[in-house]
Amino acid sequence: MQFFEGSEKKVEIVVSDESINLLKFEKSFWENIVKKCNATIISSIHNESLSAYLLSESSLFVSQDRFVMITCGETMLVNSVLEFLKTYSPTQIDLAIFQRKNEYQSNLQKSSFLDDIKNLSKLIDGQAFRMGDLDGHHNYIFHTLKPFTPPSDDFTNELLMYHITGEAAKILRTPNNKIENVRNLLNLEHLFPEFKFDDYIFSPYGYSLNAINQERYLTIHITPQENNSYVSFETNIDLSVLSFNLLDLIVKTFNPKTFDHIGFNYNQVNFSSEYFTLKKSEINLTCGYTMSFNHYSKENDILSHPVKIL
Amino acid sequence: MQFFEGSEKKVEIVVSDESINLLKFEKSFWENIVKKCNATIISSIHNESLSAYLLSESSLFVSQDRFVMITCGETMLVNSVLEFLKTYSPTQIDLAIFQRKNEYQSNLQKSSFLDDIKNLSKLIDGQAFRMGDLDGHHNYIFHTLKPFTPPSDDFTNELLMYHITGEAAKILRTPNNKIENVRNLLNLEHLFPEFKFDDYIFSPYGYSLNAINQERYLTIHITPQENNSYVSFETNIDLSVLSFNLLDLIVKTFNPKTFDHIGFNYNQVNFSSEYFTLKKSEINLTCGYTMSFNHYSKENDILSHPVKIL
Repeated sequence: MQFFEGSEKKVEIVVSDESINLLKFEKSFWENIVKKCNATIISSIHNESLSAYLLSESSLFVSQDRFVMITCGETMLVNSVLEFLKTYSPTQIDLAIFQRKNEYQSNLQKSSFLDDIKNLSKLIDGQAFRMGDLDGHHNYIFHTLKPFTPPSDDFTNELLMYHITGEAAKILRTPNNKIENVRNLLNLEHLFPEFKFDDYIFSPYGYSLNAINQERYLTIHITPQENNSYVSFETNIDLSVLSFNLLDLIVKTFNPKTFDHIGFNYNQVNFSSEYFTLKKSEINLTCGYTMSFNHYSKENDILSHPVKIL
Repeated sequence: MQFFEGSEKKVEIVVSDESINLLKFEKSFWENIVKKCNATIISSIHNESLSAYLLSESSLFVSQDRFVMITCGETMLVNSVLEFLKTYSPTQIDLAIFQRKNEYQSNLQKSSFLDDIKNLSKLIDGQAFRMGDLDGHHNYIFHTLKPFTPPSDDFTNELLMYHITGEAAKILRTPNNKIENVRNLLNLEHLFPEFKFDDYIFSPYGYSLNAINQERYLTIHITPQENNSYVSFETNIDLSVLSFNLLDLIVKTFNPKTFDHIGFNYNQVNFSSEYFTLKKSEINLTCGYTMSFNHYSKENDILSHPVKIL
């Protein structure tokens, strides 16, 4: 049984020293950070506010005072964070947030969330929570204890989608498909004409996309393989100014059996009535963000087919 | 964060050689089998058809031609199976079934299900399935390919209950509680007056029970600790002859937030309307059993409270 865990880890770090501009760092600096978790930079796009790197294992976004790095598979993202902390002492950091989603084959991972945060908390004063039930979907978050006031337009939305179905699954499960077919499916260039795009199709399956406009980004990572398909979507776009329901549109595109929505300072989300809320969770983190975690499942979809694994 | 995985593994083996009577084996034989998965025998009860051993990590039931062993925690049950196969060659075995439930901290386990069945399948021709979705509750089963016809009165029912609440949780989470308080909660001696009982209360928490009558057994294992409580129940009693709904009674006693029911050649189960079926799965195994796996969740219980883990 071949198995790929689309196990997502994410880190966000805000530096406090105003004399630092992360955008001015050499590419080699980020190459080294990325290398520490066994990933590589595939390509990049840039504007005045943001650099977006497409990685062999997901994405990295860098702006003047912060960076967001998302990785999947068996990467040790915590090692990239520890490497960054060799350059910037924890006193030069205003905020650090480290997240990991629930894993189904955590035995294949090189570390557990608890291992990771034990390492982080040697350098950073922080606390950690599990959002969602242990026996269901959940998300682990570690954050700095230091008080932080996010900018008023700072919100993030994440979608973690499982078991994609329908047209998207068909297109994405076509081996060595043309990248145009995936672009047509997503239709993002039409929805966001002002954005700069960078995407990559993996062989034989898999697709990653970064898009940026000013300080806003959106990113998609797709692992389409049957029986353990997984798609993640993340954006810091202000969804309330859009003329369409972006998150619902993304969910409808992939038509997953279950998905999770995670919001930071944003929880005004409505999804198609095809889905019901299985679990809801919310917390006011002392680092200044309200984090919501909601787990959704498809209505009228209770049949689960046995899967032969040997 | 202290964490105990009530991770249940189960093996059932039927020997084909009619000259063999497993009941006549010395206690030392079973002590050795049990030792191979790092468990020990705490106590035992016997009748003409059945020996029931209460283990440091769950239970072992032995009858003339078969044994059932259930273990939890970090035990390597597969090692006990491999040890048994040193005495009985696979050709002397009519049936072998090996099960593992989904695990939430599989990184703490000494082997994965796939590791286990790779070892087993070197000796036994078998196949394996996952029942239930990967991103939800599920159960893995490996079974022999050899055709087998179970006796007509051979059925098994398993309940795997998560997040117990209410009175049961209160009683079971009282450190170093008196065993009588747990017995009163379960009330099994009154429901099954013809059964012989053997139980054990662990310090500071935890409780195990075996009960036997002729060739019928029931067994309960309780890990009550908050945030990851887990109770398993299993019986081969013919539930259809009882004047009460045993499975629903057990569920009501523990009042779990979620539970799974697994039936072998028995799927006529109804539960209280407090629960809804989240997932259903059924398979006709070529080894002669129809296995059903149903995952239930409590209605109107969508709030999940963040859990501080550091």
